[in-house]
Amino acid sequence: MGSLGSDNIAELETNGSAFPLNPLEPEEFRRQGHLVIDFLADYYQNIHKYPVRSQVEPGYLKKILPESAPNQPESIETILSDITDHIILGITHWQSPNYFAYFPSSGSTAGFLGEMLSTGFNAVCFNWMSSPAATELEMIVTDWLGKLLALPEKFLFSGGGGGVLQGTTCEAILCTLTAARDRVLNKIGKDQISRLVVYGSDQTHCALQKAAQIAGIHPANFRAVTTFKSDMFGLNPEELQKVVSADVAAGLVPLYLCPTVGTTSSTAVDQLPGLCSVAAEHGMWVHVDAAYAGSACICPEFRHYIDGVEGATSFSFNAHKWFFTNLDCCCLWVQEPQALVNALSTNPEYLRNKATESQKVVDYKDWQIALSRRFRAMKLWMVMRSYGVANLRNFLRGHVRMAKLFEGLVSSDKRFEIVVPRNFAMVCFWLNPKKDRTGSGLDRVNELNRRLLEEVNSSGRMYMTHAVIGGEYVIRFAVGATLTEEKHVRCAWKAVREHAEALLGEHKRLQ
Amino acid sequence: MGSLGSDNIAELETNGSAFPLNPLEPEEFRRQGHLVIDFLADYYQNIHKYPVRSQVEPGYLKKILPESAPNQPESIETILSDITDHIILGITHWQSPNYFAYFPSSGSTAGFLGEMLSTGFNAVCFNWMSSPAATELEMIVTDWLGKLLALPEKFLFSGGGGGVLQGTTCEAILCTLTAARDRVLNKIGKDQISRLVVYGSDQTHCALQKAAQIAGIHPANFRAVTTFKSDMFGLNPEELQKVVSADVAAGLVPLYLCPTVGTTSSTAVDQLPGLCSVAAEHGMWVHVDAAYAGSACICPEFRHYIDGVEGATSFSFNAHKWFFTNLDCCCLWVQEPQALVNALSTNPEYLRNKATESQKVVDYKDWQIALSRRFRAMKLWMVMRSYGVANLRNFLRGHVRMAKLFEGLVSSDKRFEIVVPRNFAMVCFWLNPKKDRTGSGLDRVNELNRRLLEEVNSSGRMYMTHAVIGGEYVIRFAVGATLTEEKHVRCAWKAVREHAEALLGEHKRLQ
Repeated sequence: MGSLGSDNIAELETNGSAFPLNPLEPEEFRRQGHLVIDFLADYYQNIHKYPVRSQVEPGYLKKILPESAPNQPESIETILSDITDHIILGITHWQSPNYFAYFPSSGSTAGFLGEMLSTGFNAVCFNWMSSPAATELEMIVTDWLGKLLALPEKFLFSGGGGGVLQGTTCEAILCTLTAARDRVLNKIGKDQISRLVVYGSDQTHCALQKAAQIAGIHPANFRAVTTFKSDMFGLNPEELQKVVSADVAAGLVPLYLCPTVGTTSSTAVDQLPGLCSVAAEHGMWVHVDAAYAGSACICPEFRHYIDGVEGATSFSFNAHKWFFTNLDCCCLWVQEPQALVNALSTNPEYLRNKATESQKVVDYKDWQIALSRRFRAMKLWMVMRSYGVANLRNFLRGHVRMAKLFEGLVSSDKRFEIVVPRNFAMVCFWLNPKKDRTGSGLDRVNELNRRLLEEVNSSGRMYMTHAVIGGEYVIRFAVGATLTEEKHVRCAWKAVREHAEALLGEHKRLQ
Repeated sequence: MGSLGSDNIAELETNGSAFPLNPLEPEEFRRQGHLVIDFLADYYQNIHKYPVRSQVEPGYLKKILPESAPNQPESIETILSDITDHIILGITHWQSPNYFAYFPSSGSTAGFLGEMLSTGFNAVCFNWMSSPAATELEMIVTDWLGKLLALPEKFLFSGGGGGVLQGTTCEAILCTLTAARDRVLNKIGKDQISRLVVYGSDQTHCALQKAAQIAGIHPANFRAVTTFKSDMFGLNPEELQKVVSADVAAGLVPLYLCPTVGTTSSTAVDQLPGLCSVAAEHGMWVHVDAAYAGSACICPEFRHYIDGVEGATSFSFNAHKWFFTNLDCCCLWVQEPQALVNALSTNPEYLRNKATESQKVVDYKDWQIALSRRFRAMKLWMVMRSYGVANLRNFLRGHVRMAKLFEGLVSSDKRFEIVVPRNFAMVCFWLNPKKDRTGSGLDRVNELNRRLLEEVNSSGRMYMTHAVIGGEYVIRFAVGATLTEEKHVRCAWKAVREHAEALLGEHKRLQ
């Protein structure tokens, strides 16, 4: 039964206390911890020197690393030197000031330190008892943040709702969708799952479709309602109404609507009030996904983008996107926590405890997919305290200001165009010297921009990504990396222009 | 459209570069980082002084903290002082050497530093392109670890399978269950979901039931097959066969079996070979959950506990439980990655890239629930390299040795009993001076142990938790906190005995 041979015990007893060190011996922890802090501080000092998008080829690392784990220990110095030599060139530097791809992940010192503390305490915070401070701080910071966003009282603990920190928006959507699903199935019967319909737009993040797949929604019942350029690719309530009515007429049950504030492709904003009205008519759960743009709504001048959120059932945004909180931290607020608990709770004997039975505490394990959970509130608390609300607003405004600067630079060059209006800190543009918009002209422009983007990214000078909106291949320039300053934006524009000129010159020579 | 008033711009420009500092300014990062390393090293130095289980009352923190986020920044010194004064007393100290509750989470310096590096790079590693090193290192370390466990070649990348790092076992089960579900529904029709049945035992972790709920399995189709003391609470293949046959006769479709190696209540081991045979007859997906005990199987003398894993479809264990890797890190291996990808992939235009299209890379977003993912491979790599396989084995053996020591101490006191045989580093015992086993005698013993446990935990000297196995309320003594040494185990036994004697004395006085 797994007993130790006497040889093993002898070995342990001989080497026991002196060697190897306990793997959490405090003074060795301190020594190595300081080394890694210096390593990372140096990394940030030099980060602008690295190609932003990694330039390695698939399989590069397998050629370098051994095929098996080492039998004997290696020093932290050796490992850090391997990171410098082999890992860093395989990293796409999301913290580079020249990173403008996807939506940036705006790390910060406070976000990093919050994660360190959470990782250092290493508490597994599934219920209140497992670490009361983790649960209570999470309730406090989600209320703090809810107030900053001027969320309706019903989403705060003080108003009968509440907030929870999840890993990602995907999880937030899956949890709320599961809650919505079970709420309806409890009424119409558990075997009616194939009648439930989920709605987003053709601009909604793929997280919605994936959550619907996982939650067992029939694939034929996922609706990506078409959006139009005339609506700036926001979901139009009338279009939604048409689709919903057809489903109802076909005997299906509208379940869940996920409007977006700040879509991934173009930061489009779905019009919440009209959409919530349509959803309300049919008793649908409305989850507002403000993954990227939610942060901006702590600034009074941007708050209007979530006007109408009072008609929603839940709301989420990613603090790890644009709120200076290192990955991962998705903030979710729900109007009716009990709906989550009904769908997601489990109460095995081995987790029973007096605090839970007193019903005076929140057990967050019942608000999420996993049982185990990290002490994520620590980093959000540190971010809000270390910077303060006034600075956080100004940081966000600084990013918006830099995006406006880039937008101005693009607009001043007649060979380029802004493709959709800018809402936040992301600019969608393309190179289109002849203003082609249709047929083979459009194909050529799309190809031109595909090449332009690839050449800029391959240069390593900066990193941007693309979207296809209404058939047009646009380049997305997203400001949000914490270290980005105005000079980086100006350099980025210079790089774009230089590569464009080289491409256009080549085209001319070929003609 | 979210434009800045000229006042805001003026404010930014005035304060701009000097104050506030950029939130990722390297020298300030360095200064604060060193402070927090010292804070945590001091915490580990003093951790044995804190009550292990937090002694606060529900709502304690709300009374202390302000109702809103601060408008102005606060210094790291202030925040750390608040953590000392207000947070630490609300933490249940999972890293305490006197922590013996649930399954401990064995953090380590290497695990912590790995998380620091991952958090510092702060890359969002959803696909290969987003940080090639993160994907490639994950493939390498899961192969390393798979080899250490002597997993069948079919679970390694070299054998056509592959490993992935998830957050928790709950996620690993949900992902594999979704893959299994869709594989079957693709054959029998998407509207047949209500016919699918999921199997575990009455000892299986609640993660299975939760995953089944989320994946839309009909609640009536979740089977917790009864286990028996005569099987040491392991799932008996014959019992499974009976239940499965009845389901098949009723027109249901057996889908997914989750045997456990090392159950939460008592570290029972389900007998894989027989269970896999039953599952194979019915084409079921077999996921082996070795969340806790998987780590031990890197020691040759424990490897036999997963004999038969070659009959399984997937296998997982939590490196954050007993493999010195800070939370969170669940290692999942699958025989057929394509089944995960078929169920979980999404391919929106904005994520398209040349590497993905080359089909030469793995995009781990399609192996898990969420799109975003942390660079978790870093910490597992650092743990394996920093300690080396020989030491890792000895650390685990040391924990087993200490559990054996405790077992011996309990056995030497006739008032106590070992309730189920010890398999790994967890001892299930109770105080039962009169050897009561039935009727009101059993009730009294159960109540006695409930009180004993509560009094020990309330003392703050140590922390254990309980389980109810076969109607018996047992105390679980789980060795696994990294800092635990033999002296802590001896002290723990002393504490248990003292509290037991006080309780028994009180009983006598009352009689």
